[in-house]
Amino acid sequence: MPKSYLLKVVCPDQSGLIAAVARSIAESGGNILHLSQYTAVDIGAFFMKTQFETQEGFDVGAFEASFSSLAEGLCMEWKLLDKSRRQRVAILVSKTHHCLYELLLKHQDGELDCDIPVIVSNHPDLASVATQFHVPFYQVDPGKGKDAYEADLEAILKEYGIDLVVLARYMQVLSGDFVSRWERKIINIHHGFLPAFQGAKPYHQAWAKGVKMIGATAHFVSDVLDQGPIISQDVLRVADTRSVSEFIRMGKDVERKVLYEALRLYLDNSVFVREGRTFIIQ
Amino acid sequence: MPKSYLLKVVCPDQSGLIAAVARSIAESGGNILHLSQYTAVDIGAFFMKTQFETQEGFDVGAFEASFSSLAEGLCMEWKLLDKSRRQRVAILVSKTHHCLYELLLKHQDGELDCDIPVIVSNHPDLASVATQFHVPFYQVDPGKGKDAYEADLEAILKEYGIDLVVLARYMQVLSGDFVSRWERKIINIHHGFLPAFQGAKPYHQAWAKGVKMIGATAHFVSDVLDQGPIISQDVLRVADTRSVSEFIRMGKDVERKVLYEALRLYLDNSVFVREGRTFIIQ
Amino acid sequence: MPKSYLLKVVCPDQSGLIAAVARSIAESGGNILHLSQYTAVDIGAFFMKTQFETQEGFDVGAFEASFSSLAEGLCMEWKLLDKSRRQRVAILVSKTHHCLYELLLKHQDGELDCDIPVIVSNHPDLASVATQFHVPFYQVDPGKGKDAYEADLEAILKEYGIDLVVLARYMQVLSGDFVSRWERKIINIHHGFLPAFQGAKPYHQAWAKGVKMIGATAHFVSDVLDQGPIISQDVLRVADTRSVSEFIRMGKDVERKVLYEALRLYLDNSVFVREGRTFIIQ
Amino acid sequence: MPKSYLLKVVCPDQSGLIAAVARSIAESGGNILHLSQYTAVDIGAFFMKTQFETQEGFDVGAFEASFSSLAEGLCMEWKLLDKSRRQRVAILVSKTHHCLYELLLKHQDGELDCDIPVIVSNHPDLASVATQFHVPFYQVDPGKGKDAYEADLEAILKEYGIDLVVLARYMQVLSGDFVSRWERKIINIHHGFLPAFQGAKPYHQAWAKGVKMIGATAHFVSDVLDQGPIISQDVLRVADTRSVSEFIRMGKDVERKVLYEALRLYLDNSVFVREGRTFIIQ
Repeated sequence: MPKSYLLKVVCPDQSGLIAAVARSIAESGGNILHLSQYTAVDIGAFFMKTQFETQEGFDVGAFEASFSSLAEGLCMEWKLLDKSRRQRVAILVSKTHHCLYELLLKHQDGELDCDIPVIVSNHPDLASVATQFHVPFYQVDPGKGKDAYEADLEAILKEYGIDLVVLARYMQVLSGDFVSRWERKIINIHHGFLPAFQGAKPYHQAWAKGVKMIGATAHFVSDVLDQGPIISQDVLRVADTRSVSEFIRMGKDVERKVLYEALRLYLDNSVFVREGRTFIIQ
Repeated sequence: MPKSYLLKVVCPDQSGLIAAVARSIAESGGNILHLSQYTAVDIGAFFMKTQFETQEGFDVGAFEASFSSLAEGLCMEWKLLDKSRRQRVAILVSKTHHCLYELLLKHQDGELDCDIPVIVSNHPDLASVATQFHVPFYQVDPGKGKDAYEADLEAILKEYGIDLVVLARYMQVLSGDFVSRWERKIINIHHGFLPAFQGAKPYHQAWAKGVKMIGATAHFVSDVLDQGPIISQDVLRVADTRSVSEFIRMGKDVERKVLYEALRLYLDNSVFVREGRTFIIQ
Repeated sequence: MPKSYLLKVVCPDQSGLIAAVARSIAESGGNILHLSQYTAVDIGAFFMKTQFETQEGFDVGAFEASFSSLAEGLCMEWKLLDKSRRQRVAILVSKTHHCLYELLLKHQDGELDCDIPVIVSNHPDLASVATQFHVPFYQVDPGKGKDAYEADLEAILKEYGIDLVVLARYMQVLSGDFVSRWERKIINIHHGFLPAFQGAKPYHQAWAKGVKMIGATAHFVSDVLDQGPIISQDVLRVADTRSVSEFIRMGKDVERKVLYEALRLYLDNSVFVREGRTFIIQ
Repeated sequence: MPKSYLLKVVCPDQSGLIAAVARSIAESGGNILHLSQYTAVDIGAFFMKTQFETQEGFDVGAFEASFSSLAEGLCMEWKLLDKSRRQRVAILVSKTHHCLYELLLKHQDGELDCDIPVIVSNHPDLASVATQFHVPFYQVDPGKGKDAYEADLEAILKEYGIDLVVLARYMQVLSGDFVSRWERKIINIHHGFLPAFQGAKPYHQAWAKGVKMIGATAHFVSDVLDQGPIISQDVLRVADTRSVSEFIRMGKDVERKVLYEALRLYLDNSVFVREGRTFIIQ
């Protein structure tokens, strides 16, 4: 039975990269189905994403060994993914349900290519939503102290074999230690058009400043609050005849859209990170 | 011959304001053509814009006197504008021509209801554009020191009876004294989505941050750089496969659009300022 | 206890209309809270929407009688609405759930100012969604013939005292008789950017034509298919690297957004119809 | 001195295409700089665009001969372009100047990678704009009959060695014969969101229909009016409080933007045509 792999490569730009990768795949018996590549001239970086199909008898270990030596000579960071393996995603929430519903509905419609085996919260409010979609729901108590709380959380993530954590309006700051263990594996939705309006109450900030568009930003969580690499963003034009509470109402639709988009890009292996920012290669 | 007036009112919100203003106009013989009004619940402020027509014999002084006593009792700030009087706008530029061309082309097409009697620059580069459109062009030399420079500039503005100054990519910071004499009478275009990316090289900042949309902001100039009340904004979705120089190229179209929009709103008397931000009432 | 009313007026444009309406309200003891008005110069029509508050003792019958004579002289169509009375909305669906979920979730969040007492379908598929939100669900059988089918449907609408019918991806054409009895009281969502792509499979049509943006349109149902007055529309930029099935997937988000927006505008009494098209006055 | 080539390929989808093309280039001594490819699953078509660099001694004739036999076996349509050769573009106009100015200003700024050696019109009005930008201007008289008129026009295009004709609001229908001789070499801007609003007065049609967004469409001219393959499109949200004349004013900005975008895509060799529609591969 044919299998499908995805090869992601990032390296300093230089001559002959596309041909070298294509040849390496072809010589191992892979048939390239899709190839996209991009050179960021501002930082001299090369990005490439190649999907290829293999026949029975393809030796993935041999391919990795051979590609490894090519990669070393060209200073490549690379990753080979088995397309048949689905990512396992945990959703963390607090009290607001619009982002949670969005992800669960899209997942139910087959539009998110992952498993969502568990939902975790610091509050009991959204248990019934989890029940509607038949997903196990855990409430973890932040009152027991940060260390104990995060140990409980991490135990759940381990138990369910989680690959990626999505913060769907989760109102609790994770510790630097936790974040460093899950580097580039936590996606958060911020309800402001970052880097403007960091921190609390971004819609209030936006209203007071009189901006004409409000937005939302999905980003990887890093150890500096609201500063991790941005994955997706969108904005909404707002009239001056809108109050702060209308900003909050209207902003919800941007938030859920942006978070869903970020998760799709991640699951599609389109997100590359270099020099503290992302590059989306589709 | 009938004349047309515009009455702008801002005051604390309270009961009966619309009826009171409408009655005052009607009793003076004015016929209301258009009325728009808005209450900003977040700050308890009421905004109203009323256009009315008068017949021969209408005594504008008498109307102002009578409205004045109404306004005083209701803590109104107000302004009565004669619609037949065109605003006189000076354009200040440096070396980049896209915003200048935009304003001159739109003006030539009859889409900016103002006079543009003069263009001033700290560089000679755009003199030929001014010539193409038959507008007098003055070069002022910043080398002679800020005070002398601004005195020259102000003399030109006075000579041409200027009401509003538009900074169309003018790369010179005006002094606090100058700005305070022209409060809410200078509109600047900033090539970033303020309040993000203040100061120099906003497109470079945006690229390095990896934002997914770039924007531009037209605002009144205040004594704090890039912090004056925002009049209009827009953004453009950018792919990650765009370099800084492409951000700069693509951003030009947003800049000229936003500056033109801001100037139209201003000339249409739609811009109200309250608590450091604008409210656009059309 | 104070009560709040909304007065909607449409008539041929002429001098003095704003003042006349404002005076009529004031003389009856009404306090105007919000007034918006617009003159469509292309067809010489005047539109006005006035919200006013009344004190105890306000005689609504007397107001209607007095306003009626004013209105007659000015050829006004007008309507007085009691703001405290909530509209009753029935949702009709078939098998697709994205629009239904959108309306039920927004309603649950208090963002749709109406009652949704009943959901009706020609299929059993979405009964469980109705159950989740505790709304009665009726399945009507189209197999029994159009007349009997529509009689059943209408009996349900009558039983629940329905004011407005929303077709949330309801795949059944209603008869001309039914439509004429519910004129301007049925809102449909069409998954194309009308007037392009009328009829079946609009996304397939759009893909074959190679358009660069897909859209959706919410409109009143009239006796000509997909031709009733448009209430709201939106589009989405699509890359050529998207298949028909991706158009269908991505289009869902536009459809639910546009239908929700149309329903909000309707409930806010902002939709006026004149010469076969709408005018949105907020 | 290294030279740069662009190879465009369209063919039925099948296994091994990417590797085959990449190998063919590499074996001829070409170094691939950029490769993008796309499979349209709905019609089973494969599109590929490859830019490669060659060293002194590269024999382009030999490459073409060898690639030709590969292409034949795979039913490929293909084209090899020398990147150092600039396309020569003629602009045809009538009386309206916004699109003409846009193209000339962008060209002057180095943002259109082509030569614009001539402007032709059926009216004298825009001669002065051509003069401002030092481009030869020819007026051709439609009064002398279609055949004679088009003969004159074609003589000018031949004289200036024109590769592509851009109709920048040129209000004259070209004959089927003329169009067939310049197939996929004439780009027109239509001031409507095609396929809606074909033919005359699209903004009037849009207003009467009450659409909430107006748009513009750049397309190749084919023998059926306003039906050729669409290259680019954009829309603008319009309030109901806008008249037809405001639609016309606002639409101009969309028209010039869309036409400029289409020309850039064409010059960048990103436009592929298959089954009567375009595919944009960047």
